[in-house]
Order: sequence, then structure tokens, then C-alpha cells
Amino acid sequence: MNFLVRKALDGDHRAIARLISLVENESSFASQIMKELYVYTGNAHIIGITGSPGAGKSTLLDKLISSFKKLGKKIGVIAVDPTSPFSGGAILGDRLRMQSHALDPDVFIRSMGTRGSLGGLSRAAYEAAMILDACGKDVIFIETVGVGQSEVDIVKIADTVCLLLVPGMGDDVQIMKAGIMEIADVFVINKADREGADRLVAEVNVMLDLCGSMAWRPPVIETIAESGEGIEELSKALLDHKKYLSESAEGKKRFTTRIKMEVEEILKREIAKIVEEKWKECCDEDLIYALSTRRIDPYTVAGKILGDIFSRG
Amino acid sequence: MNFLVRKALDGDHRAIARLISLVENESSFASQIMKELYVYTGNAHIIGITGSPGAGKSTLLDKLISSFKKLGKKIGVIAVDPTSPFSGGAILGDRLRMQSHALDPDVFIRSMGTRGSLGGLSRAAYEAAMILDACGKDVIFIETVGVGQSEVDIVKIADTVCLLLVPGMGDDVQIMKAGIMEIADVFVINKADREGADRLVAEVNVMLDLCGSMAWRPPVIETIAESGEGIEELSKALLDHKKYLSESAEGKKRFTTRIKMEVEEILKREIAKIVEEKWKECCDEDLIYALSTRRIDPYTVAGKILGDIFSRG
Repeated sequence: MNFLVRKALDGDHRAIARLISLVENESSFASQIMKELYVYTGNAHIIGITGSPGAGKSTLLDKLISSFKKLGKKIGVIAVDPTSPFSGGAILGDRLRMQSHALDPDVFIRSMGTRGSLGGLSRAAYEAAMILDACGKDVIFIETVGVGQSEVDIVKIADTVCLLLVPGMGDDVQIMKAGIMEIADVFVINKADREGADRLVAEVNVMLDLCGSMAWRPPVIETIAESGEGIEELSKALLDHKKYLSESAEGKKRFTTRIKMEVEEILKREIAKIVEEKWKECCDEDLIYALSTRRIDPYTVAGKILGDIFSRG
Repeated sequence: MNFLVRKALDGDHRAIARLISLVENESSFASQIMKELYVYTGNAHIIGITGSPGAGKSTLLDKLISSFKKLGKKIGVIAVDPTSPFSGGAILGDRLRMQSHALDPDVFIRSMGTRGSLGGLSRAAYEAAMILDACGKDVIFIETVGVGQSEVDIVKIADTVCLLLVPGMGDDVQIMKAGIMEIADVFVINKADREGADRLVAEVNVMLDLCGSMAWRPPVIETIAESGEGIEELSKALLDHKKYLSESAEGKKRFTTRIKMEVEEILKREIAKIVEEKWKECCDEDLIYALSTRRIDPYTVAGKILGDIFSRG
């Protein structure tokens, strides 16, 4: 076994960080690393935390980390911010709020932007979570800004999805539209001392009532992340959901969905490599000229390349 | 030739709408339709219009349509709103501003949300633009909200990219981060009667100065879309850019980039179909059980499927 993998499995944060970078940048060792680690996965509780910018996710996360640490849990955090192509600016500012845990040997924190994750952000986040799982983290938080399809995809990686809402922010409509409401397992009304908190709680409950009977009815928890109010209750709800998953068919169902997606993603990525290579090989001046003069169309070109790829086997 | 394709080529809006739907939903006729149409493409001027929500894109577009109509142009509009998964709500509200042209036989307007475009939104928008191009539209506007990578991808389809900025909106920083600044060919400072307009013009100019000498220096045009002020100047700038493209190497370069992307996208999509089919074939209870008990890892599974796919040729 690779020396780096062994060190990471021992819990060494530098080794873990290095593995994540290798996988994120699609190093040629990436699949070997993931293969070796896979057998050690399946123990962590992966918690997705999402909500509009400014909902207080980082502050809440900071408090949640402390709460889970008290229970003796080893913690990993993957902070995803797809709206920031540069890993700096907003990301750094937000992450400062988690600084209190930055030097903690039991807490591993990793930021991911759009750049540097060639295989797509949800894939990179998934593989980072798998690495943290294999390397002994008990609880893995994936934090993301809840607007847009890519964020929904990221959240789908999680065992438990926690959605933060804040009274008086119109963005909630955006989130509802993005379809995140439907995949939330725990609702958090943060900044619950603000005006409109009760109404928001009521609204979410009405929405849940409309969904009819559910095996797991998502609790709606009021928190004030700044002061830590409601955090214990939230931790308990997250653990309850984990318990529900392990005792019901839902846990198995989620695993199946996730692993199917994973295999499909690996397949698509591997094949994309073959396609790109082949396309580079046959894309010359003449072909571009033929395309630009409409003597040939892109569909016919693609058809020929596909024929070539599949006849070489 | 297909009857529908013939009608669309004659400029029939119903037939065009039907073709776009077929392609958008990846009907089995989709590639046949695109193949037949491709030879008729290459005449339209594709203009991407982007900017933050509330920048006044729809209002500006409404005025631009009138302006280009006066020049005798036939016009197509593709309005993309990826943040609205449901084609309703915000979209309808916005589109109402273009209602004045809705019944106009020379103006074709199409909205696209996230749903119903299986192959990705930028692909759907690209193919819709190709259809409109083939069916005789002289100018095709692609309107999108300028935040996030998918919007940047959509805008890259255009010959000319027009970026709307508004004085006093912090969102501009977001846009800069998303890398749209770098691909803008024409800057529009809309709502130019607002405070801070002059400063914003100056800022954009400073930014352009920093880029050094450019073969095409993007003009910075002040408009008040509501009243129509600056619209003629903007139309002229858009036409100037089109002229620049046809007279310089840049036009050919953009075509090459676009057509390469197109072939690659077609390839990826076709291969994704093969992968999905194969994966469905061999993904059974036993395999999922082996994966869940970590007796096999997803990378090994993917490797075996790949071997299968390439040996069947």
C-alpha cells in the first residue's frame, strides 16, 4: 500500500489533504487511491449543510463542530463555494469563522471552489468525503450555498441534509424553486430572534403537512448560531436522522442511489478521456474548414469518431 | 426531408418551436434534425446578453428588438433562466416586458429553464440558436442571468457578448469573479441616469486599460433602457463587432472554438447513453450488495464495464 495512503488512514491531516488534492486534480494515482480506500469507507455520517448566502452556515457549523466534538467525534468539513471561482475573497472571509477549529487535530477543514476540480464539483466533494470517511472521520460536514443545480447535486451526497432558512430573506423562494426543500431532512430556522421567525416555522410546517405522511418528518429547529442557542437540539436531530437511516430501508436506498451515481460518474469520466484524446487526434485544419463551409456537420463527425472508438476494441 | 424541418426552414414559428422542443428533449429525431439543418446555419449574428438580475436585460432587449426590426432584421430570442427550474414565476414576469413582440411574425421568443433540457442548458441553448439560424433569423439574442459557470458557458455560444452593469449594484463583483468581464465584447451601463454611472463607466474603462492593447476594445455604452436612450448607439456597437469578427481572424477563431466544443458535447452525450444502458444492464442486487459490503469498489466495477463496452465493437 502507498505510504501516503497508510499515513492518511492513520489520521494524518497533511496526508489526507494531499490525497484530496491528488484526487481533485485527477492525478493518475487517483483511482488507485480511491480503490485502496474504499474498503475503509461506510462508517461516517455525512451531513450536508446548505442555505442562502448570509444565512449563517459557517457560524452554525462552527458551533456544531464544538457540539459533536464534545461527543468525542472526529470531524471533517468540506466547504464548497461554487460561486467563487477564485479560492479567496468570500471563501476566506467565511472560513475565518471556523478558524477556532483550524489547528484542532480532530477537525479537518477543506475549501473547494470551482477551479481545480476538473471532474465537477459534486464529484470532487464526494471523493473528498469518501477519503475523510476512510481516514476515520466520524462526522463529515459538506457546506454549500444552496442556489442552483450543482449545489443540489452536492447535497445529494449527504446522508442527512440540513437546510438553513432565515426570517425575512426573500432568497428562500429561490431555494424552494431549486428543489432543495424536497431533499431537506432537517430544517433550521437560524437567527430565530429576528422578526418573522415564528411565521417562517409555521410556513415550513404547512409545507411539510402538504407532503402528506412521511416515514421521517423533517424537524424544524430554531437556532441562534451566534449565541449557540438551539445547537444541542440540532445535533440531536442530526443524530436521530442517522439512527432513522440505519434502522429503516431509507439508509440502504440512499446508499444505492449514491453508489450507482458514483459508478456512472467514473464511467463517464474515463470515457470522456478516451473521447478527448481521439478528438484531438482527428481534429485538424481540414476538418474545421469542412465544418465551417458546412460541407460536413458536427453530428456526422461525432458519428465517425464514435465508430472509430468502438471498433478499436 | 422531414415535413416539419421544411416548414421551419420556411420560417414557420410553430414548426421552429416544435423542432426546438424535439431537440431539447433529446428526441430520437434530434440528431437527424440538426444534421439536416446544419448546412443552412452560419448566417445569423448571435448576441449574448447577460447581467445581474434586475439589471434591465428584458427591457433593453425589448428596445433592441425594435431597433433591429427597423433595419429589416428577422429576430430570434432565447431567454435562459437557470435559477428558475420551473418555467413560470420570475420568467413569465420578465418575459412580459417582451410581450410587445410576442405576436410579431418576425420575432421568435423562447424561454428555457433548467428542467426539460437533459443535455445541459448551454447545449440546449446552442442547438436552439442553430435552429433559429438555419430557419432564417438574422439576429439571435441569448439572454441569461450572469452569475455562475453555466451562464458563462451559454454566453460563450454567442458571436458578440454584451454585459449589462447597473450603477450601485454590488453584484458586479460577482460577475467579475465569474469571469464574464473577460468575455464581454460590449459593456452596457444601464440605468445611466442613476448616481454612480460615471464612476462605473470610468471603472470599466480602467479595467479595460489594464488589459493592454486589444484588437477589439470593448465599447462602454450608457443606456436608459426604459426610455430607449442609448439604444441606437448600442445597436451600432453590436453591428460593429459583427463586422470586426467577419474582417478579422477572431471570427474564425470563435467559430473553431464553438464547433470543437459542439462535436465534443455530441460525443459525450452519445457515450453517456451507451454507458447508462450498459450500467443498467449489469447493475443488479448482487452488485449493489457487494459494493455496500465493500467486497468490491466502484472503480473496479467501472473498469469491468469499460472493458465490456470496448470489447463489444
